[in-house]
Amino acid sequence: MYPKLSKLKAKYIRQLALKKYRLEKTAFILEGKKSIHLLLTSDYEIKFIVGTVSFFKANPDFFIGYEKPIEIFEVSNVELSQLGSFTNNQDILAVVSMPKQNQPIIYSTGITLALDNIRDPGNLGTIIRIADWYGISTLLCSQSTVALYNPKVLQASMGSFMKVNIHYVDLSNYLAESKLPIIGAMLGGENVHNFSFPDRGILVIGNESSGIQDEIKKNLTHSVSIPGYSSAESLNAAMATAIVCDNWKRVDYNHKKDSGC
Amino acid sequence: MYPKLSKLKAKYIRQLALKKYRLEKTAFILEGKKSIHLLLTSDYEIKFIVGTVSFFKANPDFFIGYEKPIEIFEVSNVELSQLGSFTNNQDILAVVSMPKQNQPIIYSTGITLALDNIRDPGNLGTIIRIADWYGISTLLCSQSTVALYNPKVLQASMGSFMKVNIHYVDLSNYLAESKLPIIGAMLGGENVHNFSFPDRGILVIGNESSGIQDEIKKNLTHSVSIPGYSSAESLNAAMATAIVCDNWKRVDYNHKKDSGC
Repeated sequence: MYPKLSKLKAKYIRQLALKKYRLEKTAFILEGKKSIHLLLTSDYEIKFIVGTVSFFKANPDFFIGYEKPIEIFEVSNVELSQLGSFTNNQDILAVVSMPKQNQPIIYSTGITLALDNIRDPGNLGTIIRIADWYGISTLLCSQSTVALYNPKVLQASMGSFMKVNIHYVDLSNYLAESKLPIIGAMLGGENVHNFSFPDRGILVIGNESSGIQDEIKKNLTHSVSIPGYSSAESLNAAMATAIVCDNWKRVDYNHKKDSGC
Repeated sequence: MYPKLSKLKAKYIRQLALKKYRLEKTAFILEGKKSIHLLLTSDYEIKFIVGTVSFFKANPDFFIGYEKPIEIFEVSNVELSQLGSFTNNQDILAVVSMPKQNQPIIYSTGITLALDNIRDPGNLGTIIRIADWYGISTLLCSQSTVALYNPKVLQASMGSFMKVNIHYVDLSNYLAESKLPIIGAMLGGENVHNFSFPDRGILVIGNESSGIQDEIKKNLTHSVSIPGYSSAESLNAAMATAIVCDNWKRVDYNHKKDSGC
């Protein structure tokens, strides 16, 4: 049995649906059992947690092993569905402190991913999940890219946002100063199936409709395209990210294969 | 200047948001300029079209080259946003006859795609777009897969649903009777980077949470996995489809490469 959530705290949670309030309170909401399970083992500072009576009954061991003191409140299923962004969340949500973005950017070994003006929250979340899958530790986002703590971004990332270092930067400046190969995914580039990917470099993914901006394009050292086999105009930005990363990572296998020839 | 939309027709359009009415009226709604542009060059039978005054003013040539007689109605921006599923659609929508699904299924040359219980409309739409990109002409869906004419499926497919033959079938029966290699994308399969894809075969993609059902699994002749480079649990079903298709299609390039060794 945990204490009931106060009306004041409920109001505070509902406000965090808006970016304006998230920035003002430097806090965001994370929803769902799986994501919060990951949150408990992360470095994020949890302000408090709200769960349904039925969730706590079904998951009595949920907080076992979590050592920091934590405020937990109980609500009904209906109340929880009115608090968060996902009305089908009948389980749990956490209010989390937004970390300060003042750590220095360290390019990943291997691929560093850079997003130029990705606008769709689902796409950003999915791209974060892809970055995690491919062991990419650093993701650079242009300032115009959709906000990380948008609930739809967090949901689509399936917890992966906690495992990738995500920085919002003046992307054009950053790329101009980088000494690494900078590879853009765009129409008219070299066939991604034949391209010799470097051991280390930055992969730039452009906006869903307009692709990579001219200002960013001038910093590219290479460009790659995914061969299509129809009259379809384009692949979704997240798809393109996944396919280029997969081709980049298979380099290891090709190296071995070539040396065996 | 086109006639105003009647209240009766407006009600009819709003009803088509529900699957029950789509099946009863054997009609569905398609929204957005790009999709309707493709619709006009397709074999689909258009019942009527509704657009905003501002859209018709900005696109006076939109119907040029379309030869069949067509009923067109005019509404305000606010009215259009209340008719369809996408309140940001300020342009145009079409009411389209649902084609009868009685044509025989012809397996694609190359890859035929089979979906086992894909539930998320965005995933199905994205997978249709991937199929189109990779020139896959036949997509088989289990009966439990989300309905094709769901507005979110159509939107995510970006018009590609008109270029791929999509059949809802008893997937287990179909696979049992097929003589083609049947390859499942699943954990624990052969590394997709090393796998020798056949010239022709069926690729099975499973449900977002639970993967391929046991009943379907027993029909697989092979299974493949996408190597990950982190502790991330899984890739989204649409991502997995894109990556496996990309690996399958690059076979051509590898063949050439091997023969040059």
